[in-house]
Amino acid sequence: MRQRLFTPGPLNTDERVRRAMDRDWGSRDADFIALTAELRDRLLAVANGAATHAAVPLQGSGTFMLEAAVGTLVGKADKLLVVVNGAYGRRVAAIGRRLGLAVETLDHADDEPCDLTRLAAALDADPAITHVSLVHVETTTGLLNPLETAARLCASHGRALIVDAMASFGALPLDLATTPVAAVLASSNKCLEGPPGIGFALIERAALDPAEGRNPSMSLDLHAQWKGFETDGQWRFTPPVQIVAGLVEALRLLEAEGGPPARLARYSRRFERLVGALEQLGYRLYLDRANQAPIIATFRPRPETPLGRPFDFQALYSRLAAQGLVIYPGKLTSDVTFRIGVIGALQDSDFDDLIAAIAEA
Amino acid sequence: MRQRLFTPGPLNTDERVRRAMDRDWGSRDADFIALTAELRDRLLAVANGAATHAAVPLQGSGTFMLEAAVGTLVGKADKLLVVVNGAYGRRVAAIGRRLGLAVETLDHADDEPCDLTRLAAALDADPAITHVSLVHVETTTGLLNPLETAARLCASHGRALIVDAMASFGALPLDLATTPVAAVLASSNKCLEGPPGIGFALIERAALDPAEGRNPSMSLDLHAQWKGFETDGQWRFTPPVQIVAGLVEALRLLEAEGGPPARLARYSRRFERLVGALEQLGYRLYLDRANQAPIIATFRPRPETPLGRPFDFQALYSRLAAQGLVIYPGKLTSDVTFRIGVIGALQDSDFDDLIAAIAEA
Repeated sequence: MRQRLFTPGPLNTDERVRRAMDRDWGSRDADFIALTAELRDRLLAVANGAATHAAVPLQGSGTFMLEAAVGTLVGKADKLLVVVNGAYGRRVAAIGRRLGLAVETLDHADDEPCDLTRLAAALDADPAITHVSLVHVETTTGLLNPLETAARLCASHGRALIVDAMASFGALPLDLATTPVAAVLASSNKCLEGPPGIGFALIERAALDPAEGRNPSMSLDLHAQWKGFETDGQWRFTPPVQIVAGLVEALRLLEAEGGPPARLARYSRRFERLVGALEQLGYRLYLDRANQAPIIATFRPRPETPLGRPFDFQALYSRLAAQGLVIYPGKLTSDVTFRIGVIGALQDSDFDDLIAAIAEA
Repeated sequence: MRQRLFTPGPLNTDERVRRAMDRDWGSRDADFIALTAELRDRLLAVANGAATHAAVPLQGSGTFMLEAAVGTLVGKADKLLVVVNGAYGRRVAAIGRRLGLAVETLDHADDEPCDLTRLAAALDADPAITHVSLVHVETTTGLLNPLETAARLCASHGRALIVDAMASFGALPLDLATTPVAAVLASSNKCLEGPPGIGFALIERAALDPAEGRNPSMSLDLHAQWKGFETDGQWRFTPPVQIVAGLVEALRLLEAEGGPPARLARYSRRFERLVGALEQLGYRLYLDRANQAPIIATFRPRPETPLGRPFDFQALYSRLAAQGLVIYPGKLTSDVTFRIGVIGALQDSDFDDLIAAIAEA
């Protein structure tokens, strides 16, 4: 039975993406060098970054990419302020501390978007802060942070902004020609609808030059990775060739669909349908609608189930899983919640099936 | 045109491996947890390590795995002696130094296997050395190091041995029940004939316990990665699900073929045929036969070509590439050489085609 993945990723990929993976490649061969160049160009094009930024793909998961970017861009004499309103902000802070860097956090509740007044005050209060890290959409909940205003605020304070765009890149608007961002980080397997196995950074070229030799990790050194691509078009170390081919095909499909605006419209349509139906069933969105990105929704169960029994996520999960419908538990420690993602190569009818199955369960 | 890859990897995969990749998986779902358990069990079985070692797969390339193992197993108070006779030994030393660890090298010529007398003398001379690193087969040349005797020597001196088995795992004999090795490192895409995108370590369980929190990298921390698998069977961070599925299928095919002895026999047969034919054409093996693993061969051109022209690798490469036959340049700085790998899911007839094309060129 084909699984339909209503999760934060990895997701269902289009059949054409998987067909593109059905080939072997010599990783130092001319064909694959051309494929890598297409990958890097297409990643920049998604965010209109060709004039200012360089695309640096990296083997591994999104977390590898976060660590690579922090270790490459933030130096021993620098200080990183991490805006935290979920697990992924906390992870960036933990990565920075583990690397021995100076890290402060600007802590928020998990349902509260970045408070720009507090961010401005924190930057004013501590001139030692050189870098700010912000998660665009927190996969923990689906929370949307105010990226553009935060970027302008950081720029006006002369601080470099590092954006974790794992859950937004390819769907939510991002224009690097008008939004001042030092680095945007994302991975192959969320809104781009590619297979997992690659992360990537779009890094301002001016931020790359001083980063030579800064990262204590050879594998995660994005300056050296970038230099490798620029020197001979090749990956420094063996790339996952099939994943690269799948991601390039996924980027072609994104363009054919109409780019990020069309993809956002598709996700928004599904999101509205899903939330409307689940609210009718008595579930409630965890976040205020104004703070919610149409990517992944966190639901609270009804305060009381019809028969007075407490909500049992495992029972709901198992019942749906038996029909090939996969949802995720919540990632909040304080509440009983569950998460449903609307991203991935699914049809509207798949969401009808999911809604019907939840109604029945 | 299908490319036939006579390289050190990534290689041609079996059609069944690519078919296993034609599916999406929820990475925290029961099916995928079972697949991950099968992966870990099969990796241990290849080297008979189930009683003593734990299998820790990791996202990324082989170099990520080398760095993860050095950072996890070698502490700040330890000292690593790296046996060097090629580019990959040099890379381990560079990784260790970059991590700020105490590193010494035992340097050899690129065509000289590890000298056990010198190794014993080095261990006797410096009691501060806690770990030794050895490459089983140097992909630089195809050089075979004397793994079993080196392992017994290190054990008798009370030092932990870390083995880079990238180019040997799955084909050359390795029995962890009788060979004292702290960690064996390899990747998915060489003798296992899987797709690239995953490395793995088989680590002695006694060496894992003291390694908690030692690695400055969160992503490359093999203790935390191991604990993750042991706790809930899941990967800590998003795994490349299609690559995992492809590698598990490749491991099933290895078992069906008859395990490492059968695979070694297949590679040896091809190796003999290739070397015999190329020697008849006037090419010479770079290494002494006694030091050569039947994995990848480095050839020197004939001292003089028939028409007195110097050997032109690029011309040979291009001529073969036009027929879909991919070979690699040498990785030696001092000599004009080229490399041909005999690993990968190819038929004997593919080698006939390669030999005929070289003869014609």
